[in-house]
Amino acid sequence: MKKQIIKPTILPGFMELLPREQMQFNQIIMIIQNTFEKNGFLPMDTPIIEKSEVLLAKGGEETDKQTYSFDRGRNNLALRFDLTVPFARYSAQYLPELTFPFRRYQIGKVFRGERNQKGRFREFYQCDIDVISNRELSIANDAELPSIMHTIFKRIGLKNFKIRINNRKLLNGFLEYLEIFDSTKVLRSIDKIYKIGIDTFKVEMNGLGVTEDKIFSIIDFISISGKNDEILDSLKKLGMENDTFLSGLRELEQTITYMKYFGIPDESYVIDLKIARGLDYYTGTVYETILNDYPEFGSICSGGRYDNLAQYYTIQKLQGVGMSIGLTRLFSLMLEKGMLKESQFGNLTRVLILTMDDNVEFAAGIAEKMKSHGINTQIYFEDDKLARKLSYANKLGIEYVIIIGEREIKNGTLQVKNMITGEQKELNIKDTISALGG
Amino acid sequence: MKKQIIKPTILPGFMELLPREQMQFNQIIMIIQNTFEKNGFLPMDTPIIEKSEVLLAKGGEETDKQTYSFDRGRNNLALRFDLTVPFARYSAQYLPELTFPFRRYQIGKVFRGERNQKGRFREFYQCDIDVISNRELSIANDAELPSIMHTIFKRIGLKNFKIRINNRKLLNGFLEYLEIFDSTKVLRSIDKIYKIGIDTFKVEMNGLGVTEDKIFSIIDFISISGKNDEILDSLKKLGMENDTFLSGLRELEQTITYMKYFGIPDESYVIDLKIARGLDYYTGTVYETILNDYPEFGSICSGGRYDNLAQYYTIQKLQGVGMSIGLTRLFSLMLEKGMLKESQFGNLTRVLILTMDDNVEFAAGIAEKMKSHGINTQIYFEDDKLARKLSYANKLGIEYVIIIGEREIKNGTLQVKNMITGEQKELNIKDTISALGG
Repeated sequence: MKKQIIKPTILPGFMELLPREQMQFNQIIMIIQNTFEKNGFLPMDTPIIEKSEVLLAKGGEETDKQTYSFDRGRNNLALRFDLTVPFARYSAQYLPELTFPFRRYQIGKVFRGERNQKGRFREFYQCDIDVISNRELSIANDAELPSIMHTIFKRIGLKNFKIRINNRKLLNGFLEYLEIFDSTKVLRSIDKIYKIGIDTFKVEMNGLGVTEDKIFSIIDFISISGKNDEILDSLKKLGMENDTFLSGLRELEQTITYMKYFGIPDESYVIDLKIARGLDYYTGTVYETILNDYPEFGSICSGGRYDNLAQYYTIQKLQGVGMSIGLTRLFSLMLEKGMLKESQFGNLTRVLILTMDDNVEFAAGIAEKMKSHGINTQIYFEDDKLARKLSYANKLGIEYVIIIGEREIKNGTLQVKNMITGEQKELNIKDTISALGG
Repeated sequence: MKKQIIKPTILPGFMELLPREQMQFNQIIMIIQNTFEKNGFLPMDTPIIEKSEVLLAKGGEETDKQTYSFDRGRNNLALRFDLTVPFARYSAQYLPELTFPFRRYQIGKVFRGERNQKGRFREFYQCDIDVISNRELSIANDAELPSIMHTIFKRIGLKNFKIRINNRKLLNGFLEYLEIFDSTKVLRSIDKIYKIGIDTFKVEMNGLGVTEDKIFSIIDFISISGKNDEILDSLKKLGMENDTFLSGLRELEQTITYMKYFGIPDESYVIDLKIARGLDYYTGTVYETILNDYPEFGSICSGGRYDNLAQYYTIQKLQGVGMSIGLTRLFSLMLEKGMLKESQFGNLTRVLILTMDDNVEFAAGIAEKMKSHGINTQIYFEDDKLARKLSYANKLGIEYVIIIGEREIKNGTLQVKNMITGEQKELNIKDTISALGG
């Protein structure tokens, strides 16, 4: 009977990498995790599968449609579509056991059954940080989070990006002043103005029944630009007496000042009154991050401040501020545009020891010493020609090859070959380790 | 309208941890990943969702029943139930781009919709290493893998465990010699003999039509015990002339010898002829690992050698050897039995800086310096009483608190309080950093 072979493929919209790229991806994950932890954020993880009634407590047709859900036993189950909803559920569930302010990070895969299109993923990594409290939370947090994200972007090799920052209270206050009280739809249109353009925005405003003069006021307002100080000055000069607006202005000014304290260089952040964020749970500061060379790519890191994180799971109000990197999309862009530097990541294995089966004992001893000095080491056990073994090291990008023969075992020395320069030396084990920087 | 509150819960069979336990779990993941990489294993990741026809290519009623699967669009999708099947699919799919021997590791969640019972998880982490090749693979690999796992167990704090090792060819050869040719079912019974006991084993053998004298031969054979050398001697003295048996004996002897070379201490591994492994794709070496204090817990790390990894996806034969840790189960046992040492893992955040809103600039500068010396640092921004802030540090287990007031800013000094001893000193920033070992 002939066995049936099934074509090995994966579904569209799922990212899968070859080992070299996977190493680069993991390296970025490590940088993100390390930077979060360096700043006092605690790790969190939640199940990928939860009850649909819990994950979809908030509702919203778009989310429901995109969520992978299915029946199992008596339950309808769903795969998490973001890390915020599980975080809200977690905070409510373990409320008495958490210490506030609670600084948490979570890095993990989320799932959205989106229509298949380039640059959109159905399974992707989100990297979230949030600070939440059951009491008042200092505005300094709103400045610290983008400074942490800024550090990450620098460390992973992004050069040309800008964190755009705004405060929803400014927009809300301004719309109140214009006596537009159903502001949600207006904010959604503003949020996508970079995508739809001014003309479509006007049409949408007309559709909502906003008068011509008010539309121009809104456009004038969100177009205020300049350096951060200049924008803040312009906002003050508007002479608005609306409380919401004034509170937003105060918060934004403080955030901008603190961002300087946290070491974000001037060129990396800018007030942008067009940033509104679609999600309606943001109530203060909002962020987006744009790659200057690829503005059409959209935001690589977004977030904001909210008043009531866990409202669907507890009556305890939890206020907080959070930011999230959509890593899979960002990584695939970096890969496509050659933004990942080979030198920056390198190969995990630094030394390949070549040996015959009958000197495994000697080779194992050498490998143990290398590893105890922090040098990642692999032994090539198979009985192949030398040329094939050297080619193996080359293909994997391994920097050094150690060759062990009868003579070396007798003399207690090693033939150490640098695969980049081609240079080969006979060294003892101690000199080998120091030559490799161990 | 009163908002409906949904009770925040997760499904049974899913592990979720509080931050302190999550830190310990992540620390173990880091140790595993680091040890794999130190030994030249390359990272791999595969989607959590794949097409059912691909994941379930092999079939098998038990697997099919336990797999979470559902329809979406025109496809039936499934969540991965192990990391071996995706690895087989991956190897076949990227065959021309892989360099053999291919050493890969993969750490990730897998899903099994098992009947809910204590100690069984529906979502759990597996940590796999495998070495595969399209040509012959040295038996030295069969010894290196358990030595890597041994290093991991030591590093995560397990003290009292034993790697049980066997070679399927011995059992197969012995059954051939007894002229029992339908060996699969016999092997399955042997595999669970620790669980079912000798009497039930006999009943099962009777059921398979194995004669009384052969049953006793099998029991005598698998009961051979002693030190490793003694067992090997006993096996030789059987005087078997069956080729399969002799090949298995040679391989087992080599593996045992090499395991010593790779530094596994004598007390940590033992030949056990009762180890068969249920899965029928193993063809040579097989492993299980038992915690001596909790033998009823079953194996915490298993694996073996196989001849044809990717047979359902390619005609290219790939031979290999692999081992896997079922981490979620192991971790939950360690948690329950107090096997995680507080001191071993500690807290991620070492310093909490206490400040008022109006000296955020000074505090941010201090935090930056601490972090640049590798000291994880958090600033407490909120305007609370000192007692509340100190209690926060205590609850989170943060070792040092730095207090900054007007006087300290003027003098350029810091009040450094050790939260464990209670000792408080006024130090400059340089001395603070060196006091903290930065």
